[in-house]
Amino acid sequence: MSTAGDLLENKYFFVNPKPEYLDDLISKTQDFVNEQNNITTDDKLVLVTSGGTSVPLEDNTVRFIDNISAGTRGASSAEQFLFKGYKVIFLHRQFSLQPFNRHFNKSINTSFLDYFDTNGEIKPKYKEEILKMKKLSETYKDNLLILPFTTVNDYLWSLRSIAVLLNSRNCIFYLAAAVSDFYVPYDKLPKHKIQSRAEFQKESEKHLDDTGKLVLDLDPVPKFLRKLVQTWANRSMIISFKLETDPELLIAKAKQALENYNHQLVIGNLLHSRNREVMILAENSEKEHWLRLSEKNEESTCIEELIVDEITKTHDFWMQSWK
Amino acid sequence: MSTAGDLLENKYFFVNPKPEYLDDLISKTQDFVNEQNNITTDDKLVLVTSGGTSVPLEDNTVRFIDNISAGTRGASSAEQFLFKGYKVIFLHRQFSLQPFNRHFNKSINTSFLDYFDTNGEIKPKYKEEILKMKKLSETYKDNLLILPFTTVNDYLWSLRSIAVLLNSRNCIFYLAAAVSDFYVPYDKLPKHKIQSRAEFQKESEKHLDDTGKLVLDLDPVPKFLRKLVQTWANRSMIISFKLETDPELLIAKAKQALENYNHQLVIGNLLHSRNREVMILAENSEKEHWLRLSEKNEESTCIEELIVDEITKTHDFWMQSWK
Repeated sequence: MSTAGDLLENKYFFVNPKPEYLDDLISKTQDFVNEQNNITTDDKLVLVTSGGTSVPLEDNTVRFIDNISAGTRGASSAEQFLFKGYKVIFLHRQFSLQPFNRHFNKSINTSFLDYFDTNGEIKPKYKEEILKMKKLSETYKDNLLILPFTTVNDYLWSLRSIAVLLNSRNCIFYLAAAVSDFYVPYDKLPKHKIQSRAEFQKESEKHLDDTGKLVLDLDPVPKFLRKLVQTWANRSMIISFKLETDPELLIAKAKQALENYNHQLVIGNLLHSRNREVMILAENSEKEHWLRLSEKNEESTCIEELIVDEITKTHDFWMQSWK
Repeated sequence: MSTAGDLLENKYFFVNPKPEYLDDLISKTQDFVNEQNNITTDDKLVLVTSGGTSVPLEDNTVRFIDNISAGTRGASSAEQFLFKGYKVIFLHRQFSLQPFNRHFNKSINTSFLDYFDTNGEIKPKYKEEILKMKKLSETYKDNLLILPFTTVNDYLWSLRSIAVLLNSRNCIFYLAAAVSDFYVPYDKLPKHKIQSRAEFQKESEKHLDDTGKLVLDLDPVPKFLRKLVQTWANRSMIISFKLETDPELLIAKAKQALENYNHQLVIGNLLHSRNREVMILAENSEKEHWLRLSEKNEESTCIEELIVDEITKTHDFWMQSWK
């Protein structure tokens, strides 16, 4: 049965052109997956999406809408999946945090040159951490495929292509990327930088009202999660994420997502406490439960260790259920 | 004479609260400037602004409008001013490029850990560049004050505070930051993350129209360049920047800026050729002229070397004119 949603989703890929590098991305993913062909049903494979998508406001893009996500949840979770023996496809916002590298990008007060003394040598206090993370990144490098996106359009094309490639597998889709709910369709995108003064506006690209205000109209992004669950990756275990700032909405929105898309799990958190506690709501379960870092654990571990530990256990059952 | 523009500009700082760290920024700037108190009229001091401003769409910010600027022009120019003996106040978008550090952040293909071998040592091919830039950053560290901003509001409060502090001096304002022309005033900013479904929208925070589109209304940012030239920094040499994507508009917009604000110089460039050529339009000059890197120079120098060489010569005349 074709629904209004289906039509919107199908139309999307007609109107919005595929990113130039898509064929390259597909062939890299194909190679990465083929190398693991000898592993079949017990295939421990996860797609981790991470970071925010951008929404260009012009075709020759100067301005865009963005999201505060730095990619911490995705990059840290990818590390945990690697530790658990998973192969990880890491689809991330270009220049957002990456597994292992992320440990050197998190501080406001440390720039690249701060890691070195005036002789150009690594400062002693950083040596151990650099060696440790370098060794980890080497150990896991064959199990990690790093793929970039920038815009929400890059993301959607990539997600679809990867999902279709993995379609016969029982892998995990761990969709931690912060995907925009709104965008400007390609056929409505102004070619050039939006002008701030009426006299420089082209007739075909009017965005200012009579008082000089900028009025932006953004279309809703079609709900591709439905398509992913029903068609693109219908043997995979699919996990979506909710970030809210208003505590009153979090649980209601997580419940609604499961009802709308029929996927397996929603992980929700509030902006201010996202590194200390998350709620997990599973399909067919009555009630959400929470994972929390205790204060004494906050130094030695991270919330993603708790999350991924639970997810991989659930995934073991999932894989069994397909046998 | 008070104009409509004046009113808008004055109202701005009533409606939009100052950033929490502003007093700290002012006191750091005061200290930096005081250290140079023994130098008086020949005070070679420049404020370089750099990177893009963000425009939050919510108070508990998840989404914001941003600008593609990475801060290359500002960071590279700051280096050149240091080489010419200037003290530099570098007001930049947090996490955008910084002088000397910028040489290690420019590549898509090089992450932090790529600089090290599996023993955790610096790879030989990077040693020379790291040592060179570390030495330069040490040499000039007392002449460089690095200050951050994130939002357009942070930027405007900081610019005003710094300008007022420097008011008696004949320094350079080198305004390379990409400042948004539009913003959401604080009294219209929704408290929480904008919802993508009508049923979760609060009555007071309606942004969706009946078809589910997001409609954003942004106010024009008051034109503070006028205020800077007339009041805040009326003894300084003020340089603004224009970036356009449409070649037809560039020169007209540069001319209009000089006419509107009566400052000293506009530097303009097109997005695609910004690292190879810029146009300079000076007050009272008939016509713009261009600075261009020749192909054989592109490896050994950067366009900012040409720009800053010209600017500092003009500044010498400027300082003489006040004696």
